[in-house]
Amino acid sequence: MKMNYASLTSAQAAEQYDKLQAEYESWKAKNLKLNMARGKPSSMQLDLVSDILTVLQDPAECHVDGLDARNYGELAGLRCAREYWADVLGCSWQETFVGGASSLTLMYDVISKAFTHGLKNSEKPWCKEEVVKFLCPSPGYDRHFRITQSFGAELITVPMTENGPDMDMVEELVKDPAVKGIWCVPKYSNPQGITYSDETILRLAKLKPAARDFVIMWDNAYCVHEFEGEFKPFADMLALCREQGNGDMVYEFASTSKITFPGSGISVMASSEENIAYMLKLMDVQMISYDKVNQLRHVKYLKDKAHTLEIMKRHAGVMAPKFDLVLKTLDKELAPLGFASWNKPAGGYFVSLDTMPGTAKRALKLCAEAGVTMTSAGATYPYGIDPNDSNIRIAPSLPPLEKLEKAMQVFCLCLKLAALEKVMA
Amino acid sequence: MKMNYASLTSAQAAEQYDKLQAEYESWKAKNLKLNMARGKPSSMQLDLVSDILTVLQDPAECHVDGLDARNYGELAGLRCAREYWADVLGCSWQETFVGGASSLTLMYDVISKAFTHGLKNSEKPWCKEEVVKFLCPSPGYDRHFRITQSFGAELITVPMTENGPDMDMVEELVKDPAVKGIWCVPKYSNPQGITYSDETILRLAKLKPAARDFVIMWDNAYCVHEFEGEFKPFADMLALCREQGNGDMVYEFASTSKITFPGSGISVMASSEENIAYMLKLMDVQMISYDKVNQLRHVKYLKDKAHTLEIMKRHAGVMAPKFDLVLKTLDKELAPLGFASWNKPAGGYFVSLDTMPGTAKRALKLCAEAGVTMTSAGATYPYGIDPNDSNIRIAPSLPPLEKLEKAMQVFCLCLKLAALEKVMA
Repeated sequence: MKMNYASLTSAQAAEQYDKLQAEYESWKAKNLKLNMARGKPSSMQLDLVSDILTVLQDPAECHVDGLDARNYGELAGLRCAREYWADVLGCSWQETFVGGASSLTLMYDVISKAFTHGLKNSEKPWCKEEVVKFLCPSPGYDRHFRITQSFGAELITVPMTENGPDMDMVEELVKDPAVKGIWCVPKYSNPQGITYSDETILRLAKLKPAARDFVIMWDNAYCVHEFEGEFKPFADMLALCREQGNGDMVYEFASTSKITFPGSGISVMASSEENIAYMLKLMDVQMISYDKVNQLRHVKYLKDKAHTLEIMKRHAGVMAPKFDLVLKTLDKELAPLGFASWNKPAGGYFVSLDTMPGTAKRALKLCAEAGVTMTSAGATYPYGIDPNDSNIRIAPSLPPLEKLEKAMQVFCLCLKLAALEKVMA
Repeated sequence: MKMNYASLTSAQAAEQYDKLQAEYESWKAKNLKLNMARGKPSSMQLDLVSDILTVLQDPAECHVDGLDARNYGELAGLRCAREYWADVLGCSWQETFVGGASSLTLMYDVISKAFTHGLKNSEKPWCKEEVVKFLCPSPGYDRHFRITQSFGAELITVPMTENGPDMDMVEELVKDPAVKGIWCVPKYSNPQGITYSDETILRLAKLKPAARDFVIMWDNAYCVHEFEGEFKPFADMLALCREQGNGDMVYEFASTSKITFPGSGISVMASSEENIAYMLKLMDVQMISYDKVNQLRHVKYLKDKAHTLEIMKRHAGVMAPKFDLVLKTLDKELAPLGFASWNKPAGGYFVSLDTMPGTAKRALKLCAEAGVTMTSAGATYPYGIDPNDSNIRIAPSLPPLEKLEKAMQVFCLCLKLAALEKVMA
């Protein structure tokens, strides 16, 4: 029998609740241990790319670009690694800096240096400002928000639309000189899988912020991460900003974390040559260089953008059935009940779901008690607080299909229970 | 004919100068390109350890310590890598944090976080202090000094004695609450190759600084780096400080930069468990973890301290003849002239030389013009300024022996020319 939860009477809800409660108890008795909390690739994906372990064996091959990758030097990274990233991102190699296993660390470093030393166009280090505000399109990536929060910035929620951040609001907010930047995941945004429209991207590139050192933190984490359909080209945000006279306004980031191994990949920070030169001066104090042998290993394995896209097809072969399962389960279990909605992404690592307001926390508590770990409710909002207590991020990549199926059954059941409790209350 | 430059008349000096000047011109005509600037291992050393490229080939071996090293997680590093470092440093694995290719980056991070967030026992972040002072035993390591300088700390020179930093002075200086820390290279110090005496180390552990968050930056860069004689054990500074009620006062650092590859090794930060817990909380915002596959590669290759010491013997086989050549050349060319003195290290990467005061810069300019690159004069002092313009760091590791021989000839010649110019002036 189909029923819309919104039109249930209390008695109907109670009856339904009792039925589902019995089902829930039987799931609990199974002592499951399932995890849909983080965008972690599965073992099967790691196995697909494990040839990278043997791609660099001959020490003679470490002599590249006129130097020995094994030795000290070359702060910005091996030339061939910079060229690889330039190919992937569509910028020039002079605009790149190659990092270690984590692009998050590069983002942290930009914000950290903004606070201690200032960015290239800063009048003073941000730690000397009365207040620093940062725009957080939400739902968004909790680790982005935490970086700026950790330095004491005030986080301002900007709603996401189907075309990206609400640009009317962004254009208004940047008139405040205390607003120093914005976090963006332009392609397959975390968690909604939204790709910013051309218009949104152009309006971002055209921004005229009051703060001269306003920075767009352009995390292109999923730039080649289609799991459905062909590769969708993306704009070179560096060029767009430059054309609008905003060359120094954007720092772009990407990594191989979901291309090769999350625990040992390479990352990139791309920006205007002037910004890169400025950052190199500061980073020269911090290190000699990131791991160049691993840079070389990656260039030998990934070769170029075209070959990288072939590898991404292999990942898609593992990812697509999982997303398919998630979406089919949601359609079957929740769509008729009318209290939840979700997106249907074609790439990235997440499905974002909005359940009945005021019930997300409770639903995930029920999940946890039944052995299913989800990203904390609220995590997709600044300070970890979702004002509607409604948004939930589903990360289906890690569990194998048969476990994912169980996890989704439990998840849907918990959403229903929490919603019924609300209706009954 | 032997002559002591100090007792030359102007006329004698001028005669000598003309003779050496002709020799110098003939060296210049050779268009040499020799480098003794940095403590870079030679190609021969890199080849000795290049089996590390093939030590980890089977993806199945990436499953260690109950997790998959290829995937996300384990911020403090793989358990086996932490245990490796605990074995080398003589501390417990719980006191370690395993980093990437650069221990310098870990040092930078400690200082950076002290300024932005404060250390565990700080009353406030150092950026909120009126003034922050840092003790710099000199001659010392330029990259240490630059880190604290870059954050605006005031660098205070503490003279080095043959037993380590002048401890009377250190004990006096730490009474000032603005003095927040000290840079130390306790074994084969850079550049003098001095190993701190037991008494010095104990007095450091016993310090009672006015600043509650005073930090000893204990860079154990050359902890297993003998090139002459057997391995010399060193104290566990963490335990010593703990015994003196100063458990949180020290952060120790080391890396494999001069054990495996400088461009792609692993590093470690060791401190009290409380300090590590504090730093983990801050670093959790910055990254998921450093490169765990490379940690595993290193553990498989280096195995433990005993096996690491065997590998260091192989390095010593390459290093010892170079230091021998440097010291013999100095003895032959400079000892009779009485204007220079130098140390005779048994480990580390440098020979530190004091030439006639007021002539170091000039001598190195002459070197550069003849194609021999040296570490800049003054680099071993805070702000790059040697008040005596006398100290020079010789780094003989990179050039092969035959090139090193030429470089040393040119170097000694330039020291003589600069000294004679001074005598004649």
